[in-house]
Amino acid sequence: MSVLVVGSIALDTVKTPVEEHADLLGGSASYAAVGASFFSRVNFVGVVGGDFPREHVEFFRGRNIDLEGLQTVEGKTFRWSGEYHWDLNTRETRSVELNVFEHFNPELPESYRATPIILLANIAPKLQSHVLDQAEQPRFVIADTMDLWIDIAKDDLLALIARVDLLILNDGEARQFTGETSLVRAGAQIRKLGPKYVAIKKGEHGCLLFGEDQFFSCGAYPLEDIHDPTGAGDTFAGGLAGYLASLGDGEITFDNLRRAVVHGSVLASFNVEAFSLERLRSLTMADIEQRYQLFRLMSHFEVLG
Amino acid sequence: MSVLVVGSIALDTVKTPVEEHADLLGGSASYAAVGASFFSRVNFVGVVGGDFPREHVEFFRGRNIDLEGLQTVEGKTFRWSGEYHWDLNTRETRSVELNVFEHFNPELPESYRATPIILLANIAPKLQSHVLDQAEQPRFVIADTMDLWIDIAKDDLLALIARVDLLILNDGEARQFTGETSLVRAGAQIRKLGPKYVAIKKGEHGCLLFGEDQFFSCGAYPLEDIHDPTGAGDTFAGGLAGYLASLGDGEITFDNLRRAVVHGSVLASFNVEAFSLERLRSLTMADIEQRYQLFRLMSHFEVLG
Repeated sequence: MSVLVVGSIALDTVKTPVEEHADLLGGSASYAAVGASFFSRVNFVGVVGGDFPREHVEFFRGRNIDLEGLQTVEGKTFRWSGEYHWDLNTRETRSVELNVFEHFNPELPESYRATPIILLANIAPKLQSHVLDQAEQPRFVIADTMDLWIDIAKDDLLALIARVDLLILNDGEARQFTGETSLVRAGAQIRKLGPKYVAIKKGEHGCLLFGEDQFFSCGAYPLEDIHDPTGAGDTFAGGLAGYLASLGDGEITFDNLRRAVVHGSVLASFNVEAFSLERLRSLTMADIEQRYQLFRLMSHFEVLG
Repeated sequence: MSVLVVGSIALDTVKTPVEEHADLLGGSASYAAVGASFFSRVNFVGVVGGDFPREHVEFFRGRNIDLEGLQTVEGKTFRWSGEYHWDLNTRETRSVELNVFEHFNPELPESYRATPIILLANIAPKLQSHVLDQAEQPRFVIADTMDLWIDIAKDDLLALIARVDLLILNDGEARQFTGETSLVRAGAQIRKLGPKYVAIKKGEHGCLLFGEDQFFSCGAYPLEDIHDPTGAGDTFAGGLAGYLASLGDGEITFDNLRRAVVHGSVLASFNVEAFSLERLRSLTMADIEQRYQLFRLMSHFEVLG
């Protein structure tokens, strides 16, 4: 099965206390699509300008990512610049140039409309809804979002999340969205707004998954070397969506979702080991499987009867 | 089997953004001993002044805690006052009056010297070592510590930890102690200083346990209501130690330690639901078992072969 990924494609400039790199491949859709591509075929929707390096297009193509939905338009590619301080959990946006992204209108090619799993990576909720309008009976819809949309487009976001199966957001955003300090209460409250499932990401501390009567706490993979946290959340969402697509067309159970969350966490834990998508370029399925088994062993304390 | 608990006994004044309470039962030994008492008999070593309320002594006695090692001396009981802001992970000490604690010299009654499990709750490392000097071939020694001793008594702390089986400290302290930002590297480095095992507490985010070639990541129990985080770490250590003592005299394996860490986390998760030790007063073994099972279910994602 395929997964449809829509989101931003960017050229990033990222500064950490140790290093700074310019014009890196970035954007929510780039990370998410490459993350998903480890597990399944990806239908990719996004926009770039005439300055977008050909090598990045070839990289996507080489990763089992279909590019019929990639629009190349006149103008410059979306650019983002951010800085991390010693606490790599928080970042500061230094500049944003929307460029061709300002008038992005995501259009699904005919061949994409029946894609069973849809991942709406982080973009304006109105655009995410517009993608859903074009989809034909998707089996499972995942949306990622961010604080900006809670601030400036809350009504659009509320309209969107009533239509998704799984909403992904981070802990600060879940608190901001609901006004609840307890993540347990925040997760339950967001579920009442429509999504069947809610995943709350806690950065390096793992992730909580809420279902109707079910709950999963995914521990963090303890990282030895974090070089660049950019895209960790997008890679998580991509890995999760790709893993679900790889399961074929049976029912998506809470157990499937638990494993999808762990696979997403594994991919994100690799992604932060290098700048941009560099670590994902050399990553193998054997690496992923090995770290998944480590996750399993390190989280285990009691055999389930 | 019994566990020996030594540490501070205090009367606390605690302020949160919501409530303030004065003259509460507190101190590292109080939380640790009551935590341990759910699982095993406790030999208790500490000091109080003439002003220490009789009801607290009776509370300890009623909890299967032997008080032969409790010294009551002339003067006032140790007093601590602290304040939490909205982020209940960080606190500010408002005042400390050492009082009778200033000249505390922990002495083990003859009947305590062969206690198999020893928990050196948070006090000056020199006093913790002094307790070990009096112990007769303990099977397993656990020490808890804090940032203050890393700052002002690092040599004493180094001398102590060479003699313990398990050192417990929090994430900030592990980083401060080693100068490592990565908790994985910090844990490994502390192990090289002597302790067979190191537990790094991450507040509401859980705990990491390091052994020679083994590693356990204990997720956090997602709390709905935190009223007072005071004593969470001490209760964790006490529950862990008491659980180990309850296992009898077989070898202490890494699997035993994993379960001990989860039991400690369960007790700590209850303790923060009310001020002082109030929640522990009404807590039952059925409550503990139920939350342990929840922990098990919420952490599980794959059956171990």
